[in-house]
Amino acid sequence: MDKQNISHIGIAVADLEKAIKIYSLITGDNKPEIFEVYDQKVKVAIFSSDGFPGGKIELLTPTSDDSPIAKFLSKKGEGLHHICIYVDDINQKLEELINFGAELIDKKPRKGAEGHLIAFIHPNSTGNVLIELEQRTTE
Amino acid sequence: MDKQNISHIGIAVADLEKAIKIYSLITGDNKPEIFEVYDQKVKVAIFSSDGFPGGKIELLTPTSDDSPIAKFLSKKGEGLHHICIYVDDINQKLEELINFGAELIDKKPRKGAEGHLIAFIHPNSTGNVLIELEQRTTE
Repeated sequence: MDKQNISHIGIAVADLEKAIKIYSLITGDNKPEIFEVYDQKVKVAIFSSDGFPGGKIELLTPTSDDSPIAKFLSKKGEGLHHICIYVDDINQKLEELINFGAELIDKKPRKGAEGHLIAFIHPNSTGNVLIELEQRTTE
Repeated sequence: MDKQNISHIGIAVADLEKAIKIYSLITGDNKPEIFEVYDQKVKVAIFSSDGFPGGKIELLTPTSDDSPIAKFLSKKGEGLHHICIYVDDINQKLEELINFGAELIDKKPRKGAEGHLIAFIHPNSTGNVLIELEQRTTE
């Protein structure tokens, strides 16, 4: 089994423009990639997305009150939303996690915003951290 | 200014042995590096630490009730403790952050457990995420 890389860290923020300023300064990326994910009703800013070898910081803000991120912010406030980790074979990993007894949000992979296969592990199993698994479908 | 890499993500856990099991499964690293940091009174497990290109997952558990991680756990419970980001020049970065008006925990760098220069930015300035900056003193 290969060791896995962190894809990104998702941070929920109430004020995207304000958060972009400090994360630009911290990461050294003054031009984060900004786009909307319409089905999740979020606006996203990804830092150091151009050929950057390490994990990326992804800021998430809701575009609507019924966005999952709006619910997160009203319940928990700003802060870490999830950590996304690459896996080589998401079906095999989910099977291993089910056999282990982990609590899964997605027992089968589904397509994420960028078309890659993703699945979430429930924070109950991971020390209260929402973990996303991602299998790249193109490289 | 160079774009910066994530060094590691620190997760505070109450039961290190239990957390190691699921993070071994998620990361594919069955032999995390385990050691104690005596001045912080924590036991640490780092996954994928051997020449791994991306950010690492670091589990932290207290070895004493007066450990900063014990205080964190009793106040907030298990979960993300901090994100550590590499910087090329920590003094320059801290100066930029001070000029920006960021709230800093360390206005000057200090030596971390591994001998590298580190400094923490207060979560108040970063969407409620404790950010550690790290300048490697040896490569």
